[in-house]
Amino acid sequence: MHNPDHSQDVTAGEVLAPYLHARAADFLRGLRLHTESVSDTAGAEEAARTLRGAARRIGGTLHTFRPLLDTAWADQLRTELAWLSGTLALEQACTSRLVRLVDALSRLSSGGGPVPTARGTEGGTGLTVGAARAGALLERQLTLARTRAHSASLQALGSARFHAIADAVALLASEVPLGPAGSAPAVEVIDAPAELAERRLLDAVAALPLSRAAHPYNADALALAAGEGQDAPWHQTRLLLRLHRYATEALHTGGEPDSHLYEAARALDRHRDAAEAATAAATAARTPRIAPATAYALGVLHADQRHEVEAARFAFQHAWHRTTAPVVS
Amino acid sequence: MHNPDHSQDVTAGEVLAPYLHARAADFLRGLRLHTESVSDTAGAEEAARTLRGAARRIGGTLHTFRPLLDTAWADQLRTELAWLSGTLALEQACTSRLVRLVDALSRLSSGGGPVPTARGTEGGTGLTVGAARAGALLERQLTLARTRAHSASLQALGSARFHAIADAVALLASEVPLGPAGSAPAVEVIDAPAELAERRLLDAVAALPLSRAAHPYNADALALAAGEGQDAPWHQTRLLLRLHRYATEALHTGGEPDSHLYEAARALDRHRDAAEAATAAATAARTPRIAPATAYALGVLHADQRHEVEAARFAFQHAWHRTTAPVVS
Repeated sequence: MHNPDHSQDVTAGEVLAPYLHARAADFLRGLRLHTESVSDTAGAEEAARTLRGAARRIGGTLHTFRPLLDTAWADQLRTELAWLSGTLALEQACTSRLVRLVDALSRLSSGGGPVPTARGTEGGTGLTVGAARAGALLERQLTLARTRAHSASLQALGSARFHAIADAVALLASEVPLGPAGSAPAVEVIDAPAELAERRLLDAVAALPLSRAAHPYNADALALAAGEGQDAPWHQTRLLLRLHRYATEALHTGGEPDSHLYEAARALDRHRDAAEAATAAATAARTPRIAPATAYALGVLHADQRHEVEAARFAFQHAWHRTTAPVVS
Repeated sequence: MHNPDHSQDVTAGEVLAPYLHARAADFLRGLRLHTESVSDTAGAEEAARTLRGAARRIGGTLHTFRPLLDTAWADQLRTELAWLSGTLALEQACTSRLVRLVDALSRLSSGGGPVPTARGTEGGTGLTVGAARAGALLERQLTLARTRAHSASLQALGSARFHAIADAVALLASEVPLGPAGSAPAVEVIDAPAELAERRLLDAVAALPLSRAAHPYNADALALAAGEGQDAPWHQTRLLLRLHRYATEALHTGGEPDSHLYEAARALDRHRDAAEAATAAATAARTPRIAPATAYALGVLHADQRHEVEAARFAFQHAWHRTTAPVVS
């Protein structure tokens, strides 16, 4: 993790500042994009993505390198950025969840031939009808959720709370409020926080049932009643891997990223998306007065997405064992 | 495939006869067991298993080595044995299907925690109730099917058709009706039919999407509407693998069986069982007037068993690539 370029007279603040300045500039660019794209959906999405990405990176850096910063300032801004990126993420999450579920339904109910039943095409029709109704139900529910998320985003971006964040980030674009350790030579103080972030990631991964996940078709993720409990450590690892990646970005701004680590991160994103899509299918199945065929298709969809959860765990362990980065120096 | 023990003066009939005599003796032992176990369920099951195993092996041998046998006799007896083993297999199939589905439901709905939903235990209760009802429905349907299969078995075993088979097998226990080639030296004529059986197996395996199956979580088996069509080549391979195994048994009676080939065969059995269990879940879901929660649990179960189908394909290709036997000499 130690960067040989940090000469003795470069302070920790001088190492972190360029990264934080650049992410703050990204944030302000996102804000401009947002202001300019009032009636432009694609522009508004791009603006939200830029704001979220910058907010996550700034928040992550404030979290990891907190010992070097003005901690009261860092904690406060981090809390606010977490609120903002969480609020902005919801709309996109609803959209991608709907796309994922509709794609899965179409994959499940397509194939040309009859469903695997003795009744032939009659059964095929049953699943096709159920899948179409399930798709319509999910579309209704997730579109409603997305509309609500969209309103919440707009409301957030127009709020005094957001303007206070934007002001703080605008200041960050030119100056980073440091703590006493921020003025110490980088070579002495900057590696420890980054190594702690890495250690937390390694510990979280070590606690995952990776050798079990490496055994394909273990059906672990299909123990539906154990769902939330068994998913949590993977979700937590996803957040820790993100913090580790941002810390690496902050310290090695020009370095070549580890493609396996990126792949591992993508697998954990997929794990989260599939788990949430499975939940959405289960939630839709509890809608009162749905037809049995609809409930049936939602059950198939739920199990299918849990199958995807298991597949993502398999992909994660595969990528993780190929990463080179996670070795504490 | 060529057995070095076949000296020039041993005829093909002399090589096949001990195997057919022994399997015919097994059949007659099964018949005796059946007669002695009128009110003994375990004994009756053992009798049916013994009769089926012997009938399949005799039928397979008559099929593979048909060119060496009295073909009219072989074709006729083979047809009758196929009817018998098919009839006797149904009851056991219903029992094991029910066990498989009830086990899967219990695995799916257990785990201690809530189901993966935002509603927590409420959702857990929903799946638990649905799983219990689905289990009761499947039990009702499969118990009824099993009772019918049991009656059909008893009727078959009391029929004139069965007694004619038993007479034919009793003759086979002491004499094998050969064709002209059956009197030829074994070394000249016995390998070709066994190699044809092997060639058919190799061709069937070569046509399977094995490299796709080797890629875990490909979700191929979850294209539910394509179910029957995509399963058929695997089911066909299962039958050809069985014929190949019986031919090997007939020619190398003392040899060590290839454990990987046995494992591959077991994987294809599991493939068939899971595919049929998935069909049973889909069929149950079309029962009129079931509750949505029941239909939902059956949908989860259906997808779960298709996941098992995919897992069995993965297991097959894994075992197959480790087999040593399937190389044509």
